[in-house]
Amino acid sequence: MAKELKELTPRSESYSQWYQDLVIKADLAENSAVRGCMVIKPYGYAIWEKMQRQLDDMFKETGHVNAYFPLFIPKSFLSREAEHVEGFAKECAVVTHYRLKANPDGDGVVVDPQAKLEEELIVRPTSETIIWNTYKNWIQSHRDLPILCNQWANVVRWEMRTRLFLRTAEFLWQEGHTAHATKEEAEEEARRMLEVYATFAEEYMAMPVVKGVKSANERFAGAVDTYTIEALMQDGKALQSGTSHFLGQNFAKAFNVTFADKDGNRDFVWATSWGVSTRLMGALIMSHSDDNGLVLPPKLAPYQVVIIPIYRNEEQLAQIDEKATQITQALRAKGISVKYDNSDNKKPGWKFAEYELKGIPVRLAMGARDLENNTIEIARRDTLTKETVGLDGIEETVATLLDDIQKNIFQKALNYRKEHTITVDSYEEFKEKIEDGGFILAHWDGTSETEERIKAETKATIRCIPLNGDMTPGKCMVTGKPSPQRVLFARAY
Amino acid sequence: MAKELKELTPRSESYSQWYQDLVIKADLAENSAVRGCMVIKPYGYAIWEKMQRQLDDMFKETGHVNAYFPLFIPKSFLSREAEHVEGFAKECAVVTHYRLKANPDGDGVVVDPQAKLEEELIVRPTSETIIWNTYKNWIQSHRDLPILCNQWANVVRWEMRTRLFLRTAEFLWQEGHTAHATKEEAEEEARRMLEVYATFAEEYMAMPVVKGVKSANERFAGAVDTYTIEALMQDGKALQSGTSHFLGQNFAKAFNVTFADKDGNRDFVWATSWGVSTRLMGALIMSHSDDNGLVLPPKLAPYQVVIIPIYRNEEQLAQIDEKATQITQALRAKGISVKYDNSDNKKPGWKFAEYELKGIPVRLAMGARDLENNTIEIARRDTLTKETVGLDGIEETVATLLDDIQKNIFQKALNYRKEHTITVDSYEEFKEKIEDGGFILAHWDGTSETEERIKAETKATIRCIPLNGDMTPGKCMVTGKPSPQRVLFARAY
Repeated sequence: MAKELKELTPRSESYSQWYQDLVIKADLAENSAVRGCMVIKPYGYAIWEKMQRQLDDMFKETGHVNAYFPLFIPKSFLSREAEHVEGFAKECAVVTHYRLKANPDGDGVVVDPQAKLEEELIVRPTSETIIWNTYKNWIQSHRDLPILCNQWANVVRWEMRTRLFLRTAEFLWQEGHTAHATKEEAEEEARRMLEVYATFAEEYMAMPVVKGVKSANERFAGAVDTYTIEALMQDGKALQSGTSHFLGQNFAKAFNVTFADKDGNRDFVWATSWGVSTRLMGALIMSHSDDNGLVLPPKLAPYQVVIIPIYRNEEQLAQIDEKATQITQALRAKGISVKYDNSDNKKPGWKFAEYELKGIPVRLAMGARDLENNTIEIARRDTLTKETVGLDGIEETVATLLDDIQKNIFQKALNYRKEHTITVDSYEEFKEKIEDGGFILAHWDGTSETEERIKAETKATIRCIPLNGDMTPGKCMVTGKPSPQRVLFARAY
Repeated sequence: MAKELKELTPRSESYSQWYQDLVIKADLAENSAVRGCMVIKPYGYAIWEKMQRQLDDMFKETGHVNAYFPLFIPKSFLSREAEHVEGFAKECAVVTHYRLKANPDGDGVVVDPQAKLEEELIVRPTSETIIWNTYKNWIQSHRDLPILCNQWANVVRWEMRTRLFLRTAEFLWQEGHTAHATKEEAEEEARRMLEVYATFAEEYMAMPVVKGVKSANERFAGAVDTYTIEALMQDGKALQSGTSHFLGQNFAKAFNVTFADKDGNRDFVWATSWGVSTRLMGALIMSHSDDNGLVLPPKLAPYQVVIIPIYRNEEQLAQIDEKATQITQALRAKGISVKYDNSDNKKPGWKFAEYELKGIPVRLAMGARDLENNTIEIARRDTLTKETVGLDGIEETVATLLDDIQKNIFQKALNYRKEHTITVDSYEEFKEKIEDGGFILAHWDGTSETEERIKAETKATIRCIPLNGDMTPGKCMVTGKPSPQRVLFARAY
């Protein structure tokens, strides 16, 4: 029975059901009683914590500090920036009252009509407005710049169709908000943070990404330019994994934030904002996992190694316990996180399936024969292969293997992306090929009209205009008008 | 001018204005545009991060894991537990709508009346209800217990009178929620977490606390017992600094959470919850700081040491830079955090005042004569004393000094508390002495009536029934009825 409990719908049968099964059965997250809001379970949260810690270190290395701004935004703030309100007003949680009272007509409590707010408050969908209203008081002169703040927070966007991690009404994220004296400095910051995100995605999540700029249609509401990293999932759909916005002076103008330069001239402040969210959990899961469960990159796995004893009697277990303790200490001394599972109410087979499902990168199993031979069985989660190795220098063996797994799953994902990235020149071919999924590089005339037509007819969107792409000009596949470079299309999450 | 900018209202003049000045001028926090919600500024947040990291480590060492539960609570959940709703309904932020739309009568946006929620959502004031509704699905058998979850989150309680950190509508906190098979285990957990909080307060915040149990009047709404740590601020007022609740089976009954024991018998699950919040920032500030600014315990200071060069020309600065770099490296190698401030747009005097205000525990200043003599001036923030010491072994000198400062400020706070804790036997004397502030140990007959009368007549509340107090019985100072032990009274924040 235990085995069936862990079985997932195969990806070939239904990728979306496989994803849903995996998130639930690997104890990552579940839906809550509040529509669209998820519960992030301890194992899922442990992965998120690893991500947070690493990103936070990278933000601090690039000179940023953390701060915290209010959960609520006065309704009028949202409309200060015209495009911003357009983008966010339709999916807001609105606080209108501040008290409940006993129900005069029966049980429970009702909203107290006397406790109505003068101005409604919006639960932040993103914090540009409240933060720029705050920065107004922090910035007088060029000496107050730059401001390089980041915030770890929850945000709410009232999505109608939700999926665990990928699209939820409430999600966790970080949002950086920076203020600069010059346009160049702000643009540089926006690109710097794009690089940080790309490095994190590739080196920690082992997830290759394409860096690029969004088209006007896909831009953040209120941004001048939105930079993005785009990843390709195993079902051929793209997933936007992080964005960094050059906001120009839009929010400074909306909130009248000016500074005096060295000569005493006043100008509006330049801005960026950038964020990644628990959506990255979805990206991580879908990039590497298989029909047996999660596959985690060693750098983000809550436990990198699990050790499982295989024994016939208490005496054997005692001997294995002793060896396992030594191995655990040796591994920990090398900075490797280890779980030794000698719980006696579960069979080894159950444990093997459990830790496969949970994506622990390396499994060590030790039995009676291993004790005799001073060996141990070492299995890697990514390839599902195993071998018996000598115990001497096991910590080196494991460290090398973890590095290898980290590299291998990145390479595997990169190969997949290469195999599923094609170049197309005619719209007919595009419409045919888009059905197979994957990235398509094609020429586009740069207009919103053409972009919208393609989306309406094929459900594909421009994921980005690649930053390091082929700069050969050509002709738009739809209109034949000139195009400076190919752009990246895909159907997307 | 710089100096005046940093000047605080003296404590002797107005303690509450001094506190307000300090929070603002040391860049810890400020009020936001949203009534009752604060902005935690980078320096304040850096201290909170140090607290978080340490507490999180202590929670994990005691077997807890982090998770995340929804921000919103369906209105009906709150009323499931009768006392709980009584305690929290009066101060709730209520979400009633999920969309805004363009104002048909003019500018901006208005709430879209068509987007009304069927059931209102409450922004969590605390998460027992949503969590126990979730635990219902996690718990079937004794094998699923215990559950030891913690959550770092924001919560909202609509306070009418707010003060930065001490009482704000939105605040940050952690809330632990545990589920157990037996009453004994849950009670043990509640007391264990009280000990964790007390250890954190005393060893990290350098803030002595009295551990005790709350009287029924002061208990958490829905708890069977509330354990508390109570600290005494420099103005003689008490500050409740952390609470740990034994919840009995109240929430399990409200949400019908049962488990099968080893014999297959079903019983309701036993619960605890426990939390500390950004209120601890207020406690930290008020415990140690003085009229010159913050005094921070070295274990929680974002920077433990600041090095300031004093120079006449570029050549001297270059020489000092070189020495300072060596010192910085030596200190960092010992795990000491250091800031070297050689910015040339501020005078040393300005920097001295600035870092005093910010509470950096140790200041090192190096001038031309120090270069010649291989010495450095070392100043400690807690006593404001300084001396010139040899550079050899400076890292040992500083490490020892940091330990000494940590101990000294704890001892100073402990001495203050001892001097301001008195024993009183008559209500007349109580009414007189309570005007001086401080803790008063007195006998009480155990009734809510007497407690309420004392509160109404003196503004003093029972802070706790001390756990390790004098167990000599006596007679209630008000009614003369028997009392098993003295309880701790104070006026409180």
